[in-house]
Amino acid sequence: MPGALVPKPVVLHTADRAREFVRDRRASRQGIALVPTMGNLHEGHLSLARLARAEADVVVATIFVNPTQFGAGEDYESYPRTLDEDLSLLYAAGTVDAVFVPDEGEIYPFGADEAVRVSMPALSRELCGASRPGHFDGVASVVCRLLNIVTPDVMVLGLKDYQQLIVIKRMVADLGIGVRVVSGRTMRDTDGLAISSRNRYLTDEERVRAPLLYAALEKVAGAIRNGDGNYGALQQSAADELRASGFVPDYVEVRRAADLARPNGRQPPDELIVLAAARLGKARLIDNLDLRERELATSDVSAST
Amino acid sequence: MPGALVPKPVVLHTADRAREFVRDRRASRQGIALVPTMGNLHEGHLSLARLARAEADVVVATIFVNPTQFGAGEDYESYPRTLDEDLSLLYAAGTVDAVFVPDEGEIYPFGADEAVRVSMPALSRELCGASRPGHFDGVASVVCRLLNIVTPDVMVLGLKDYQQLIVIKRMVADLGIGVRVVSGRTMRDTDGLAISSRNRYLTDEERVRAPLLYAALEKVAGAIRNGDGNYGALQQSAADELRASGFVPDYVEVRRAADLARPNGRQPPDELIVLAAARLGKARLIDNLDLRERELATSDVSAST
Repeated sequence: MPGALVPKPVVLHTADRAREFVRDRRASRQGIALVPTMGNLHEGHLSLARLARAEADVVVATIFVNPTQFGAGEDYESYPRTLDEDLSLLYAAGTVDAVFVPDEGEIYPFGADEAVRVSMPALSRELCGASRPGHFDGVASVVCRLLNIVTPDVMVLGLKDYQQLIVIKRMVADLGIGVRVVSGRTMRDTDGLAISSRNRYLTDEERVRAPLLYAALEKVAGAIRNGDGNYGALQQSAADELRASGFVPDYVEVRRAADLARPNGRQPPDELIVLAAARLGKARLIDNLDLRERELATSDVSAST
Repeated sequence: MPGALVPKPVVLHTADRAREFVRDRRASRQGIALVPTMGNLHEGHLSLARLARAEADVVVATIFVNPTQFGAGEDYESYPRTLDEDLSLLYAAGTVDAVFVPDEGEIYPFGADEAVRVSMPALSRELCGASRPGHFDGVASVVCRLLNIVTPDVMVLGLKDYQQLIVIKRMVADLGIGVRVVSGRTMRDTDGLAISSRNRYLTDEERVRAPLLYAALEKVAGAIRNGDGNYGALQQSAADELRASGFVPDYVEVRRAADLARPNGRQPPDELIVLAAARLGKARLIDNLDLRERELATSDVSAST
């Protein structure tokens, strides 16, 4: 029984209770780690909780499907809400001390429509932000609140949502928020597909094709490593191949990993990252491949999950 | 020598130094109060510092002329910068432990133009916000940063900038920032003029007329106290009188004091506030009169300065 030595996590429903929980722990000089999630937890989230456990004395996970980061026509209503299963998973994993599960009024006490918003600069309107206007402002708006309520020493975010990670790091640095941001790598199924809550929107048939997204990133990355510097053509050809396999690509792009700026052609390959977003059926899938990392065979990657 | 028992305030030039100063004080369980200013300190600021001293063990004042709250054509360039005099005043007053005097790069490390902004909802576009687009977003953006850097237990703001106070309280409540906001009342010269850094833009002749702004508020407040509920007519007539005296009024408005909403006609007078902004020569003057407060004769008011 993996969680036997760790007490069951406390479930906190209000911001006041969350503050109180953290205040008590901090009074005994314990460091706090925050793992923000939208629930429907999977191995990816659990790996972030384990990372958090290694970084701090106390791990607080949050489960909140944030309305302000969904656009019109997106899947806010249908986003999977599986609180009971999520709590069971966290109990079993034994890596989390508390789960903050606020309702909307705890996060947006004046309503989501009249909320104070955190407005991110230009980067937030590129890549995923281009097809999801306001998405990253919504992400920043909720993460800012979670940071203010939980006041963690460290926050753990996943590398799968790479642009989100960069946007949040920018918010933290620019607003002067005193938290260290740690990132955890993407968990993949054995066939390479990045684990995501939205994978459940895939039909069985689509699920079989879904790993082609990561395969497309590997192909672009491989070409760059072999000296191909014509990023535009590589992007185009990857998008065409995805389209031929039934995906509707939003983008395949080569960027500077450090800040997601467009490469100026003089970066060494290992400063780059390849990112993609594509719809497959009802699912909008995103993934990325960071050329700074050692190239991993799919079997190596899956072994780490 | 009033400050004899208090050591000279420490001047902190960087965010890192400010964090370090606060961390040390907090390690010895001291409570921190923040008094944000744009410098050019006067008796109004000093009264806020005294209030802060009564609220916490350690008082940190900040002096920063915030570029993001000034619009095109406003007085950012000419705003009085008087750091030496400010520090002398604070030394003499002996109520402040540290003064955080950041340069722009400490507050906006990615530049003021590419800064993450705090976007305030509708209220921020009324009253002063109507003639100063983006002003309160800029105020919220800098105060959010100062709160993140100094992490005070309490922040002290002046009641003269009443809309600013309400906007900041809203930001704090909505973003879940763990700080208590305390307000200090408006300091006035003996003739009733609210003390303000911008009074120095007045010529001698304009300075003589300037108290008519507060007199206009008193007239509206007196009429409301006497049962006149025709706010529209009272506002109009006050604005007309100011115009006749050489002011260019932006607005004279009766609002609900608690949240600056428009009165619905059913509020008792003592839930209202009268606010005004008007240009007189080069100065844009603002003032307000809160009907919740006991009516003060001008001599009573001046006695408190």
